[in-house]
Amino acid sequence: MNKQSTNSLFSLDYEKSIFNSEEFLKNVAVDNVIFGYHEKELKVLLLRPGGYSKWTVTGGYVKKTESIDEAAARVAITRTGLSNLFFQQFRSFGTPERVKDPELTPELFTERTGLQISASHWIFDYYVSVAFYTLTEFSLVTVNKGPYDEEIAWKAIDQLPDLMFDHKEIISEALKALRIHIYHYPVGYELLPEKFTLPEIHNLYETILGKSLDSRNFTRKLMATGILKKLSETRSIGAHRSPFLYKFDKKKYDAALKNGMFVAF
Amino acid sequence: MNKQSTNSLFSLDYEKSIFNSEEFLKNVAVDNVIFGYHEKELKVLLLRPGGYSKWTVTGGYVKKTESIDEAAARVAITRTGLSNLFFQQFRSFGTPERVKDPELTPELFTERTGLQISASHWIFDYYVSVAFYTLTEFSLVTVNKGPYDEEIAWKAIDQLPDLMFDHKEIISEALKALRIHIYHYPVGYELLPEKFTLPEIHNLYETILGKSLDSRNFTRKLMATGILKKLSETRSIGAHRSPFLYKFDKKKYDAALKNGMFVAF
Repeated sequence: MNKQSTNSLFSLDYEKSIFNSEEFLKNVAVDNVIFGYHEKELKVLLLRPGGYSKWTVTGGYVKKTESIDEAAARVAITRTGLSNLFFQQFRSFGTPERVKDPELTPELFTERTGLQISASHWIFDYYVSVAFYTLTEFSLVTVNKGPYDEEIAWKAIDQLPDLMFDHKEIISEALKALRIHIYHYPVGYELLPEKFTLPEIHNLYETILGKSLDSRNFTRKLMATGILKKLSETRSIGAHRSPFLYKFDKKKYDAALKNGMFVAF
Repeated sequence: MNKQSTNSLFSLDYEKSIFNSEEFLKNVAVDNVIFGYHEKELKVLLLRPGGYSKWTVTGGYVKKTESIDEAAARVAITRTGLSNLFFQQFRSFGTPERVKDPELTPELFTERTGLQISASHWIFDYYVSVAFYTLTEFSLVTVNKGPYDEEIAWKAIDQLPDLMFDHKEIISEALKALRIHIYHYPVGYELLPEKFTLPEIHNLYETILGKSLDSRNFTRKLMATGILKKLSETRSIGAHRSPFLYKFDKKKYDAALKNGMFVAF
């Protein structure tokens, strides 16, 4: 499970320092597509910055002393309160047009944040966004908006609101990458209870892939990977219905996460 | 086939302008892992910059007026003479340690290029490399080294020389990505003659995947994708051996390249 940070999440002074300091790499940012799963629903965590009409995925800048992976993790904690997420980098986005938006001007920026910023600041050039996705169980976490955000919300992936910049493309590419990765890497450890039924993991895969999978075929192929252990326990889910419970073989799961595995559902 | 540029490839003045101009994004670069295939051999194109003992993949910086994809293509033309390559972005690399190298100091840089550069220049901070790979038929192209390069050569992927920075990891991750992509996207149009035999495409897939594939199973699954057309022609390759020729159905091939396809070899 993802650990929820209980400390104060933000330092406004720290946030203010970003735009005028030499502490950060220029022309580079990270964006996190945080997918949330719960009972056959797949959502994405979005923010609406104060003063903007459009929504964004969570993103931020990269310190010279940290890696892009560390930046992605730090940004997730700072802007959402979520820590210990397993981020998977999937693509970088970089075109001269990508961050042009009529709502992003030096004047509106200053109005929104109270910070002075020069029109020649690199955020008004273009910057390359290194994008990551992650998966979490959204019913188990509480998210917190950052100091400049007006709203934070889980939105269904097929009902996205208006998005800023190229964030619609970023989400769609994240989903495409996730759907490829699921054939080559295990998924589910952070999303299912410790002990789960076959229909539960079947639902998870169907929801992520956005299509139905023959259940006998699915079970046979998943069991063949060795990442699942069948328990002797059952769970009673109604009259005469007591399916067996399963759990992940964490050692094999981690090995598959590291070295890849291949399942052709 | 990849088109070979016949114009003068480099402008030294242009190259010199890079490090002291405002024309380029800061803290970002592109790297191209150019794989070459020919008759069961997989190689990678490497450069050894003058004054350095180590080799690098081809890379360069990104202009504010171009996308990262355009930068990758421009760098390939400038540094190798190869144009019209189909680049596939696979990952970005960014850690504070990635470009530290005892051979990259302001003094050695000036000695090597004759250019003055400040120790506070962003190339001595760290920069994020957006990495791409491509595949070409190496026997069909002539490559040209750039003005600062001492050597350019195709090196077998299992016999790599000493590599600069994190370029060994970049090559290894490129190969990993290629081996995943080959299950989801077609490959071969730029690598095989227009008409080819089944053993030829079978060899290509085995070489890229680095493992043997049951030939009957391979053929059945590849034909099921619809990207191959069997011709009525045969090619005589010896006494009593005249295998049928095949070609790609370019329309279906391009659709699969765009939308993905799935082959579980």
